[in-house]
Amino acid sequence: MDEIKVVIWGFGAMGSGMAEMLLEKEGVNIVGVCDVAPNKIGKSIFEVLNMKSKNHPEVIIKEDIEEIVNEENADVALLATDSFTKEAFDKIKYCLENRLDVVSTAEEMAYPQAQEPKLAEKIDKIAKENGVSVLGTGINPGLIMDLLVIALTGACKDIDHIEAERVNNLSPFGPAVMEEQGVGTTVDEFEKGVEDGSIAGHVGFPESIQMIADALGLNLDGPVAQSKKPIVSNVDREAPVVKVKAGDVAGVEMLGYGKVDGEKMIEMIHPQQVEPQKEDVDTGDYIRIKGTPDINMSIKPEVPGGIGTIAMCVNMIPHVINASAGLKTMIDLPVPRAIMGDMREMIEE
Amino acid sequence: MDEIKVVIWGFGAMGSGMAEMLLEKEGVNIVGVCDVAPNKIGKSIFEVLNMKSKNHPEVIIKEDIEEIVNEENADVALLATDSFTKEAFDKIKYCLENRLDVVSTAEEMAYPQAQEPKLAEKIDKIAKENGVSVLGTGINPGLIMDLLVIALTGACKDIDHIEAERVNNLSPFGPAVMEEQGVGTTVDEFEKGVEDGSIAGHVGFPESIQMIADALGLNLDGPVAQSKKPIVSNVDREAPVVKVKAGDVAGVEMLGYGKVDGEKMIEMIHPQQVEPQKEDVDTGDYIRIKGTPDINMSIKPEVPGGIGTIAMCVNMIPHVINASAGLKTMIDLPVPRAIMGDMREMIEE
Repeated sequence: MDEIKVVIWGFGAMGSGMAEMLLEKEGVNIVGVCDVAPNKIGKSIFEVLNMKSKNHPEVIIKEDIEEIVNEENADVALLATDSFTKEAFDKIKYCLENRLDVVSTAEEMAYPQAQEPKLAEKIDKIAKENGVSVLGTGINPGLIMDLLVIALTGACKDIDHIEAERVNNLSPFGPAVMEEQGVGTTVDEFEKGVEDGSIAGHVGFPESIQMIADALGLNLDGPVAQSKKPIVSNVDREAPVVKVKAGDVAGVEMLGYGKVDGEKMIEMIHPQQVEPQKEDVDTGDYIRIKGTPDINMSIKPEVPGGIGTIAMCVNMIPHVINASAGLKTMIDLPVPRAIMGDMREMIEE
Repeated sequence: MDEIKVVIWGFGAMGSGMAEMLLEKEGVNIVGVCDVAPNKIGKSIFEVLNMKSKNHPEVIIKEDIEEIVNEENADVALLATDSFTKEAFDKIKYCLENRLDVVSTAEEMAYPQAQEPKLAEKIDKIAKENGVSVLGTGINPGLIMDLLVIALTGACKDIDHIEAERVNNLSPFGPAVMEEQGVGTTVDEFEKGVEDGSIAGHVGFPESIQMIADALGLNLDGPVAQSKKPIVSNVDREAPVVKVKAGDVAGVEMLGYGKVDGEKMIEMIHPQQVEPQKEDVDTGDYIRIKGTPDINMSIKPEVPGGIGTIAMCVNMIPHVINASAGLKTMIDLPVPRAIMGDMREMIEE
């Protein structure tokens, strides 16, 4: 069998991280990379990644996807460009119509049924018409606050209440994440950013909560509720790309829930900030299930978001290739797993 | 759609627990129960379970499976009779040939490829010939020391070492488990029991370790190594069905590993005993992954084995019905999940 041929669309922190990871794996090649950044277009990915190509064929970053994607030369596209289904839609459509399987990092694509049910239907239809499949995944949504919760409920006869908490460190992230999360702003700027939508906070609660509800067969009373408030720092903090003064915003605390029969049944707590250790905040992932039996899980420190998202997207490539045609979510496919052998051996005939 | 029709073969602690759980669920009925215990044969399951039947049709426990199973009247068999593939084989074959999907509690059936590759092939062939599927599952093997480990590696770019530890409490279990684990024996009796095979300890390390290796694409150097030693109690302990004197055996500590390139890569630690709190032993499930990134997970206390196995088997029914024909393992199917709605809604058309 030929090596698996991968196209990467979007060569920011996530896309370039996936490239680095793929270059270490057997049985898979990167056949094209697309990005719109003027300082990347026309350059070799090895130059941008600052690494040697070893035996991997040269890949020059192109601005225009049409120069890269056609159904002859690739199996799967990793799409690392957007957070929202609406914004990713045309790109997903383009790949599917060129008969590529697609893995998307767009948080809403982890469960587009939650907030974009009509687009989800359209995507499913396009994928089926073209005999390919599409999955949205990442560390969260995609694993920590949804798939892992669901898997643990598999050991339960009954569920009364689910709480998922992720206390994470934003320090390793780049300027785009700092901006989206309002890190380094004053409290006033933060409130304005939340109002005008420029500070999005974590995107994914409606997706994670709806995914859990649908997996378990629970009917939510209505749309998922969520709120965000600034984490105001009591001390000066400094991360690689941002400085936060005492009294300014170190991150965002998000809360969300889904109700069943009038009671909060699925609750999410997600404070994200830079340098949490400066105020003795322990990072970690926590899942607390009340049911038969109760299950109390913790992962300390938290599974890091950047590496985790990169790994989840690459590790799901074989499952997406193996999947039947259509829109898939993490609850439809076998569990993710690290790929330590030849990726081709994971492909079903 | 008609209710899902389930046959339970083996009405001990596991089989009867599954019946209790099924009776609380929507969209599923128990259509037959088979057991060889003279004090159960001919009785109503509701009498044996000491509960009311509500609207569920009467089910009388039969000695002979042929009185129950035929392809007209059932969809899936829950087989809760054995620990070893060899012993479960004829029963699995009988169900498959009568076109029933099968969920087996036999620990070796969680990954029969590990210790019974020829029987695994046969089972796969019989299942495919009859257009049905068969899965072995339970809390462990099935989830805690294998599927959950694998799912967490999904967030990793690379894996250097995996350690899974399960420190659990045997107190809630019945006499059969105490006997298999050597609880209440003297150290001499324990050593003899290990030698003659009557004290099996935990069955599942080869299955869990091989499942992890195969999922990740790791080639083990050879068969999984395992050892067991007695947990000698320093104090008197008393569980519902067994008493342990100080100096006698409260349980069994099992160790196992799989090597890759000469190094122990996947290690398992599993001390099982009654009343661990008598000597300040904290029970829990622990997964420690060294890789990129490291992941340190703990579940405290441990997910209880009895309820967990019952829940896993029942919760996997829809996945087994949906699966393509053949022998399946937990790494082939979507993640388990608690069933809180109508089970029929989880069945794909």
